[in-house]
Amino acid sequence: MASTFGHLFRITTFGESHGGGVGVVIDGCPPLLEISAQEIQVELERRRPGQSRITTPRQEADTCEILAGVFEGKTLGTPICILVRNKDTRPQDYSEMAKAYRPSHADATYDAKYGIRNWQGGGRSSARETIGRVAAGAIAKKILLQVAGVEIVGYVKQIKDLEAPIDPDQVTLEQVESNIVRCPDPVYAEKMIDLIDQIRRTANSVGGVVECVARNVPKGLGEPVFDKLEADLAKGAMSLPASKGFEIGSGFAGTLLTGQEHNDEFYTHNGEIRTVTNRSGGIQGGISNGENIVLRVAFKPTATIGKEQRTVTSNGEATTLAAKGRHDPCVLPRAVPMVEAMVALVLCDHLLRHQAQCNML
Amino acid sequence: MASTFGHLFRITTFGESHGGGVGVVIDGCPPLLEISAQEIQVELERRRPGQSRITTPRQEADTCEILAGVFEGKTLGTPICILVRNKDTRPQDYSEMAKAYRPSHADATYDAKYGIRNWQGGGRSSARETIGRVAAGAIAKKILLQVAGVEIVGYVKQIKDLEAPIDPDQVTLEQVESNIVRCPDPVYAEKMIDLIDQIRRTANSVGGVVECVARNVPKGLGEPVFDKLEADLAKGAMSLPASKGFEIGSGFAGTLLTGQEHNDEFYTHNGEIRTVTNRSGGIQGGISNGENIVLRVAFKPTATIGKEQRTVTSNGEATTLAAKGRHDPCVLPRAVPMVEAMVALVLCDHLLRHQAQCNML
Amino acid sequence: MASTFGHLFRITTFGESHGGGVGVVIDGCPPLLEISAQEIQVELERRRPGQSRITTPRQEADTCEILAGVFEGKTLGTPICILVRNKDTRPQDYSEMAKAYRPSHADATYDAKYGIRNWQGGGRSSARETIGRVAAGAIAKKILLQVAGVEIVGYVKQIKDLEAPIDPDQVTLEQVESNIVRCPDPVYAEKMIDLIDQIRRTANSVGGVVECVARNVPKGLGEPVFDKLEADLAKGAMSLPASKGFEIGSGFAGTLLTGQEHNDEFYTHNGEIRTVTNRSGGIQGGISNGENIVLRVAFKPTATIGKEQRTVTSNGEATTLAAKGRHDPCVLPRAVPMVEAMVALVLCDHLLRHQAQCNML
Amino acid sequence: MASTFGHLFRITTFGESHGGGVGVVIDGCPPLLEISAQEIQVELERRRPGQSRITTPRQEADTCEILAGVFEGKTLGTPICILVRNKDTRPQDYSEMAKAYRPSHADATYDAKYGIRNWQGGGRSSARETIGRVAAGAIAKKILLQVAGVEIVGYVKQIKDLEAPIDPDQVTLEQVESNIVRCPDPVYAEKMIDLIDQIRRTANSVGGVVECVARNVPKGLGEPVFDKLEADLAKGAMSLPASKGFEIGSGFAGTLLTGQEHNDEFYTHNGEIRTVTNRSGGIQGGISNGENIVLRVAFKPTATIGKEQRTVTSNGEATTLAAKGRHDPCVLPRAVPMVEAMVALVLCDHLLRHQAQCNML
Repeated sequence: MASTFGHLFRITTFGESHGGGVGVVIDGCPPLLEISAQEIQVELERRRPGQSRITTPRQEADTCEILAGVFEGKTLGTPICILVRNKDTRPQDYSEMAKAYRPSHADATYDAKYGIRNWQGGGRSSARETIGRVAAGAIAKKILLQVAGVEIVGYVKQIKDLEAPIDPDQVTLEQVESNIVRCPDPVYAEKMIDLIDQIRRTANSVGGVVECVARNVPKGLGEPVFDKLEADLAKGAMSLPASKGFEIGSGFAGTLLTGQEHNDEFYTHNGEIRTVTNRSGGIQGGISNGENIVLRVAFKPTATIGKEQRTVTSNGEATTLAAKGRHDPCVLPRAVPMVEAMVALVLCDHLLRHQAQCNML
Repeated sequence: MASTFGHLFRITTFGESHGGGVGVVIDGCPPLLEISAQEIQVELERRRPGQSRITTPRQEADTCEILAGVFEGKTLGTPICILVRNKDTRPQDYSEMAKAYRPSHADATYDAKYGIRNWQGGGRSSARETIGRVAAGAIAKKILLQVAGVEIVGYVKQIKDLEAPIDPDQVTLEQVESNIVRCPDPVYAEKMIDLIDQIRRTANSVGGVVECVARNVPKGLGEPVFDKLEADLAKGAMSLPASKGFEIGSGFAGTLLTGQEHNDEFYTHNGEIRTVTNRSGGIQGGISNGENIVLRVAFKPTATIGKEQRTVTSNGEATTLAAKGRHDPCVLPRAVPMVEAMVALVLCDHLLRHQAQCNML
Repeated sequence: MASTFGHLFRITTFGESHGGGVGVVIDGCPPLLEISAQEIQVELERRRPGQSRITTPRQEADTCEILAGVFEGKTLGTPICILVRNKDTRPQDYSEMAKAYRPSHADATYDAKYGIRNWQGGGRSSARETIGRVAAGAIAKKILLQVAGVEIVGYVKQIKDLEAPIDPDQVTLEQVESNIVRCPDPVYAEKMIDLIDQIRRTANSVGGVVECVARNVPKGLGEPVFDKLEADLAKGAMSLPASKGFEIGSGFAGTLLTGQEHNDEFYTHNGEIRTVTNRSGGIQGGISNGENIVLRVAFKPTATIGKEQRTVTSNGEATTLAAKGRHDPCVLPRAVPMVEAMVALVLCDHLLRHQAQCNML
Repeated sequence: MASTFGHLFRITTFGESHGGGVGVVIDGCPPLLEISAQEIQVELERRRPGQSRITTPRQEADTCEILAGVFEGKTLGTPICILVRNKDTRPQDYSEMAKAYRPSHADATYDAKYGIRNWQGGGRSSARETIGRVAAGAIAKKILLQVAGVEIVGYVKQIKDLEAPIDPDQVTLEQVESNIVRCPDPVYAEKMIDLIDQIRRTANSVGGVVECVARNVPKGLGEPVFDKLEADLAKGAMSLPASKGFEIGSGFAGTLLTGQEHNDEFYTHNGEIRTVTNRSGGIQGGISNGENIVLRVAFKPTATIGKEQRTVTSNGEATTLAAKGRHDPCVLPRAVPMVEAMVALVLCDHLLRHQAQCNML
């Protein structure tokens, strides 16, 4: 259903941008995992607003409280609930948007669907909802690392037409976190920051592409047919706010090659079957093959901008809107931990599913 | 789970390329829908092998039998089961592949996951599995048409570097079906057919892009957060064999625009709120806005090719493989009804979900 | 999964008896339902500890906070989260039970399953978990009442060998709430209260049977095969702490009749098809027939008692235990709102499911 | 959804009593399990009509075909589809029931829900649907036996007021199968057969109770809260046609004891924690404790009888009906393998779930 994701490692998020708070219930987590609020907070810091001059200035510490499911520092196996209170809310900034629909935003469709919406901020469509995903993703990452040494690293690959050359096999979290735009190439990072800063000053916005790699993923994760690993990754990525496209491995560019050029030939290395190239992006037939999983997610330019645009009121009357409120001129830097979280959630769910079905007899 | 798709209009497919047959169970279908095997057969004809010189020569009539769920020409509301027997199987063609893994195919990952695979043909990873999807899609299409006048039209947009200019707002099924490659532009269709024919003669393969439009989709379908309409469409598309990428609306190209350039401004037309442009692709905040839903799916070049490639056996010994068997030099023409089916299944499921939640009080 | 119940009107509970709190996320609730924390509190009052001398003396106001999903007094259609903080916790009372397993309690099986448990109170097996169910049930009841006039009334039918004669077609909430044991027959209520009071003084416990009736349930709810209405009701009831048996309509006693004696003959009343008798308990073939739904749930005597019993420690060493802590001498009075909640949750879920499938074409 | 059962070991049944056939798709089955159609047929023989003079005389061999999912005698890990064709159908016997509703049968409620029903036989409400369950149960049983040595034995405990004394800890399949009523006590078996034979001759019917024991169930299966093992067993049992009640362990009779009398004290035997008594029925707090799981299911007398009864037509006109067709005078003998199948399906599903969550870190 709408607010639940995963089959065995299953999360349910709740909350709106303005209201009591946002959070997540994680059901199906293995017991005896050591986890602390501090470890979760590390990931929430990467997501939180106000972290730099190129993100929204909304000030939220996003301090999380573990309400349930952890006892004496270990998971109990029962549902974990994590809550983050909303603090720095300014509903008055949204009074104009209570009436005028923001172009390319969810205001109009929520009204069309439900006949009601929380017009104080984005309500449920706000990126604040992703706090629950990132918190749950922190736990999923820890399980993946502990069980199989899986490393997940996301980064900004492209901002508008600035595309950085990055080797997914080598990129490190440290490189990513070394600058505020989260592009591991320092030269491109500088250019990207300048571009975002410039677009921010014009009350406009830009989009781009996040690339994400998962290394050391065990062979055999994913299932044939509908729950192919790339299908679940695509769903996870395309469920993030502002995402418009998804690619695995060669993606759209792969359509320009012939089969002979595109196929990943097999060879044996240290007794293990490997592929010479990795156009498959670590997945063949829906199932991980042990190579690095590499994917890309396109994010559109932020819909809410300060520039004046033509729109209509909920009554259908023509009007104009120059949005107030505090908004990201570019969602990409904060989208990096979101993409990583979705990748971690999908992989952790499939790790448990594989364990259930294929390590039994 | 792996072989089930949808929450309310829910399908479960079964079967391998070589074995008793393939089919689908459809649960949750509204009662009293008039449906016949003939109507389903029409869609299966568009998917079946051997339909033209640019598809696999395997000869399968793919005649379907409705085993259950339909009585006196109408759906009962209980599960519909549709079965297609496998006829023209040649397991002997696959004897070599019983040992040597096809590069970029599912052979190796199935073995890694399950420790066993049906090496006669592609087993469960064969595109024959999609027969069940297309059959179920035919029913979903009929419901969508009957309830809301929804039209779904897919077509080949691109083969390798040949990209046809097509207007999704105007394209018709008749145009699509007027040639064997299913590109509604007759000039490009000719070029594409030539290209595929040529690549076929070299025992190689090519990929491309299917575009699909859904028109007259009611406002309000889709849900916030994880089951966004584009997320479920992405999952459906990326669960198709050979798919490597998915875009909705502006997609990856949208990342090159600023927010001001990208946003779809609202206006009122005949009392209805519409958008001037449609870079959103008919979906905003995960929910349909009444504009045409437009999406694209990238398909890689067919992995199984007749050219010799380096690979390994299941024991990890180096060998070469020039695949026998009958394979599509390009999956695109037959992928068109598959993409349409997945779009129909997602929309029909969300139509029922919307009806349940939002037409109640 | 473990902590989620329902397919469309879907709840996920979280929390342990000792810890940050307990609560529920309700996903799939129709929008625009008027609901307040006060309305939910009314039901929580019926469930809360310390409400009378025959329940546990633990003092919890169980004041609920609606964290999300309600705006200006109306449901948004997005997830509703309700939180109740734990206040009057006394972990020191449980220090002995940290080591010695309570007979017939979940202590030992939680340890066997998870290798860890929150030994402060019952952890996740505590009846405090049902706060989330009762809160969600309050909303489900309101939907059922508003859409179809459904009334759900539960009551104590039997305590130990005291079985009260009650007419499910006539019983009222007022009668039920007129005494602390929630038996609508005042004579039997008095006897039951005396019995529980007496057993309480001996540090022992008793069980009994809750009967529940749902009136004005529309025809057509429930589904053939696995999700029969009685099957989902049975699951809901048997998921309550301490439940050991479930009956619908004639139940076990019906096995003593012949088919001719047992069958409910049909007749027409005011143009509507009715049954003369109601041994079916309002459900035939898994689907409601418009008659009153009548079911019974058996609850064992409370496992945690003050009397000394032989048991073992988690290391398997023989010991004895006379439980401290504050426990109900009989769960029945507080089980009444729990049973009602589960019935409401099942009916509301099936109301939405029926709406989705059968009011579409 | 209606026709799917289980979370990881998941089955979907299809088919009506009159039509192309009935069957099941099993998804999530572990790979490499040796299984043959013959092994499945053994269980189907126990369920099939016409097996003795006290069952319906409808002659169906119920020969099963494995359509998919098994290769060279072993499961592939992908969906298994099993089909049984309908052969000995006599729709003409049902022509009267096309108009007149059978009292206490699903005819009227199906019409009320769907506005249509397959009036040739019971359609989807026919016990023929359980063929799929029994076939899937045969596979579940084999997994349980192979992984953990689990034995599941069901038997007729009671027919009308004849209740046989049987020790669930000792009863064997051979004893159960030694007579046509499936009561392991030979004296009571004789009495029961006489009673059913007598009731059959009067065109009437009787009900009774099936008891079922599962031995050697590992500790730790089942989950807290909603998916308690007894809750899923209750749902499985109450989803069988004609079931009206469910008990685990002490059941309704347990309500007559005090806590001190009812509690199962712990002791250590050969280093393992055991309980002295087993009023819990092998489950505490929703989780198996390693003792024998013992449950009972009440089945009403068969609704379809040859005696004349008052009823109405689908138009609501008063009429009478003396049912033709071939019906069981008592469902109990054939219900035994159905109950066993549901128990096996629930246990196998929870075995996989436990493996996924608790054998990971």
